[in-house]
Amino acid sequence: MSLDLLLDHLKHTAALSQVSGILSWDQEAIMPVKGAVQRAEQAGALASVIHARNGDPHIPEWIAAIDQDRLSAFDRRNIAEAQRGYDKATRIPARLAEESARAASQGQRIWAAARAEKNFSAFAPALKKNIDLKREEAKCLSAPGSDLYDCLLDDYEPGARACELQPLLESLRPGLVALREKIAGKPMPRALTGNFPAAGQLMLARQIAVQLGYDLEAGRIDTVVHPFCSGTGGDVRITTRTDEEDPLNCLYSTVHEVGHALYAQGITDEFMPAADYCSMGVHESQSRFWENQIGRSRPFADWLFPAMEKAFGTMSLNGPDQLYAAVNRVETGFIRTEADEVHYNLHILLRFELERELIAGTLEVDDLEEAWNTRFERDFGLAVPDASLGVLQDVHWSIGLFGYFPTYSLGNIYSACLDKAMRADLPGRDDMVRTAQTAPVLGWLRERIHHKGRVLSAPQLIEQATGEAPTAAPLIDYLEAKFGALYDL
Amino acid sequence: MSLDLLLDHLKHTAALSQVSGILSWDQEAIMPVKGAVQRAEQAGALASVIHARNGDPHIPEWIAAIDQDRLSAFDRRNIAEAQRGYDKATRIPARLAEESARAASQGQRIWAAARAEKNFSAFAPALKKNIDLKREEAKCLSAPGSDLYDCLLDDYEPGARACELQPLLESLRPGLVALREKIAGKPMPRALTGNFPAAGQLMLARQIAVQLGYDLEAGRIDTVVHPFCSGTGGDVRITTRTDEEDPLNCLYSTVHEVGHALYAQGITDEFMPAADYCSMGVHESQSRFWENQIGRSRPFADWLFPAMEKAFGTMSLNGPDQLYAAVNRVETGFIRTEADEVHYNLHILLRFELERELIAGTLEVDDLEEAWNTRFERDFGLAVPDASLGVLQDVHWSIGLFGYFPTYSLGNIYSACLDKAMRADLPGRDDMVRTAQTAPVLGWLRERIHHKGRVLSAPQLIEQATGEAPTAAPLIDYLEAKFGALYDL
Repeated sequence: MSLDLLLDHLKHTAALSQVSGILSWDQEAIMPVKGAVQRAEQAGALASVIHARNGDPHIPEWIAAIDQDRLSAFDRRNIAEAQRGYDKATRIPARLAEESARAASQGQRIWAAARAEKNFSAFAPALKKNIDLKREEAKCLSAPGSDLYDCLLDDYEPGARACELQPLLESLRPGLVALREKIAGKPMPRALTGNFPAAGQLMLARQIAVQLGYDLEAGRIDTVVHPFCSGTGGDVRITTRTDEEDPLNCLYSTVHEVGHALYAQGITDEFMPAADYCSMGVHESQSRFWENQIGRSRPFADWLFPAMEKAFGTMSLNGPDQLYAAVNRVETGFIRTEADEVHYNLHILLRFELERELIAGTLEVDDLEEAWNTRFERDFGLAVPDASLGVLQDVHWSIGLFGYFPTYSLGNIYSACLDKAMRADLPGRDDMVRTAQTAPVLGWLRERIHHKGRVLSAPQLIEQATGEAPTAAPLIDYLEAKFGALYDL
Repeated sequence: MSLDLLLDHLKHTAALSQVSGILSWDQEAIMPVKGAVQRAEQAGALASVIHARNGDPHIPEWIAAIDQDRLSAFDRRNIAEAQRGYDKATRIPARLAEESARAASQGQRIWAAARAEKNFSAFAPALKKNIDLKREEAKCLSAPGSDLYDCLLDDYEPGARACELQPLLESLRPGLVALREKIAGKPMPRALTGNFPAAGQLMLARQIAVQLGYDLEAGRIDTVVHPFCSGTGGDVRITTRTDEEDPLNCLYSTVHEVGHALYAQGITDEFMPAADYCSMGVHESQSRFWENQIGRSRPFADWLFPAMEKAFGTMSLNGPDQLYAAVNRVETGFIRTEADEVHYNLHILLRFELERELIAGTLEVDDLEEAWNTRFERDFGLAVPDASLGVLQDVHWSIGLFGYFPTYSLGNIYSACLDKAMRADLPGRDDMVRTAQTAPVLGWLRERIHHKGRVLSAPQLIEQATGEAPTAAPLIDYLEAKFGALYDL
């Protein structure tokens, strides 16, 4: 009885959280500009309702009355999630929650202006404020003496600890550095050039999405400035963008969001927390898997090249081999979001290192820009010309997202682990990809990841799916094999 | 202090109601089909939250502590609206509210199937259920012995009473009947025929909307099966539809929704109930005014004809005179939504009469089809061939909308009152319409209607705007003049 009441409460809260997601999607994708003022009120009013429901005093009473020994792991996880949400809602004072929301919203505005002016000091006070509030929030939630960063990480990667994450992520560095140094002296493959009408890009993006298994009856594709995926179960919407000089941006951003969307469409229960996605790292493993291990593979170029020729006519590349090389060009650059597979995780390592120090208080905001530039030059061999290409490039810290960056690298690590195990299970996968008949690939992920919810922790889930505890080795092996062949190393 | 608390409460509730509107819009306009299950949960969860807020026990405490004598009429209206919402939320038991929602949703499904089969008896039980629940609801809300129908009417036309509405609406009948009989023997003007691509219709519809003052930065236009308008203030979305054989359907449905949208975009405060639209009748007066008094006027044909030729090429009509006649063809038919200005209100009179008797219990559902057919033949001189062209044509009763139909006729009556007064104030209006420079027309309505909210009752508002208490005379005068000239009576 108490369990039913608790689950019913969770279900209604989940439905309201979905509404909040619809509002955000609407705001980013299609809302008229003058709707902004009322939308802020709407989002705020809904957030208050959800906060109050998460902290409903009945929750601990219901939980106390449940005999958990007789329950399935699924329902025990639902209860644990209810407890986790209750703790977060009740331990953080309303004043602090409000101040954080305001600081995040102001922070983003100030960050955008500072980035445009390439002026870090204009952003520093807002960043300090965000860090102070995040530290205060972490102190409300964690045991005395524990690592405050872990507490922030927990929002995105439940149960993860920085002291375990750090050696895992750092174990990527030697292999990545060796690879990027070997490639540096090699000739760069030809890039795709020309003009590619937006309508053709969107038509092809839609075709790819459907071909990979995205269900358009349970979703839709719209155009935005910064693509994202939103929703769960029967209503999972993706977004994309077009650049008439670079159709690969649209196509690969679509494949990336389709990866997220396939996970979200594969959730078995839209309302139960235990059925929800396991962690941000696992979510990112799905987008990265489809974007990189499938989308940037040689067999996919066999499918994509003729599809692009059909959409755009004759291109500046002469066949699938050149397309494969073009979508895997390795180039040292300043911007994380434009980085190739070899450089990407080095960008994350830098941010992970810096944000841990910021939260620990061992690095001051006033010293951040210099620390960024010094360490960037150490890792990438380039001097950062200005803050917009350096410490001001990402929005995350301006809106209080600390502990989020490492989930990108976890996603890359997990995707390679899954890729390795899947290749053993599906020896004919290259042919499936070559013909875009990837239903068995999706089926493999559905069964092992999408349908598993968050009953297990992310490392447990990956271990169960692959037979091995996750390490960086499969990612390094994959990158060495792929880029070794591409660059004749 | 109590007033601030109350207004803040109302504001947050209004924001949540707007969210509910966004969900409905999304569902009708763009939601993927498989989102239906979660959408039902979302809408239900949100409705519960809003219901609980409307019935919040603080409301009567706050109201009791406010010294209303010192307040503006605006704030007194806010308080009255809070009290009205509180009464509705607390006097109707949760069980009844739930049962009504379920009966409405089932009723609509059963109605749609029955209409497809042209079988009224398949719908009768669901209709009985809806009527029983509506009567029960009205009994919870009204004083013993009062007219239950008034209580239902109050949801759409606050403060209106059937005993006053009935003579007003019935006073239309003699003039309408006389007009339709005189026209019956006259030759029918030529209709528009041909094929009109959907893209051209939508482009022209958008152009008309903007030209009439619809602000696309505070709204958007999408395509649906049954057009509607949704939202308030900075986010007012309209919808339209296209039929390649009949562009006038798209264009005039757009003008109608633009009329609603101009009202909604002109609301001065998106969150205060006292600033909201006055009544459904007044809302409909705005859509009808733009659709009929402006859109179906001779000067508008001067603007529309060349715009249509530009969009579609040479047409089957030879100029603005023929277009004006074509958009004002008078033809006796069975379907309300297809009726011309002469017949429309006769359709409403029939429904108003029947639904009052159904709610009073003087007409049984089992006798409804026969009553409909007998009275339809009496009023229109045609025998109803089957229920889909008769009693089953409208969705309203199937979803529990009783007391809604008369607001359509009120809208027509009010629009003619406003038209008469505006013509006196803006003698150059025909030229404005001929060139689609209608900013002064919109300005007149903004000042007298849109910016006035619901501080006054609908009849008070119309009287204040026009200098005369509303009667049916301006509508009959307008119709006699217009159709007298068109049909050479």
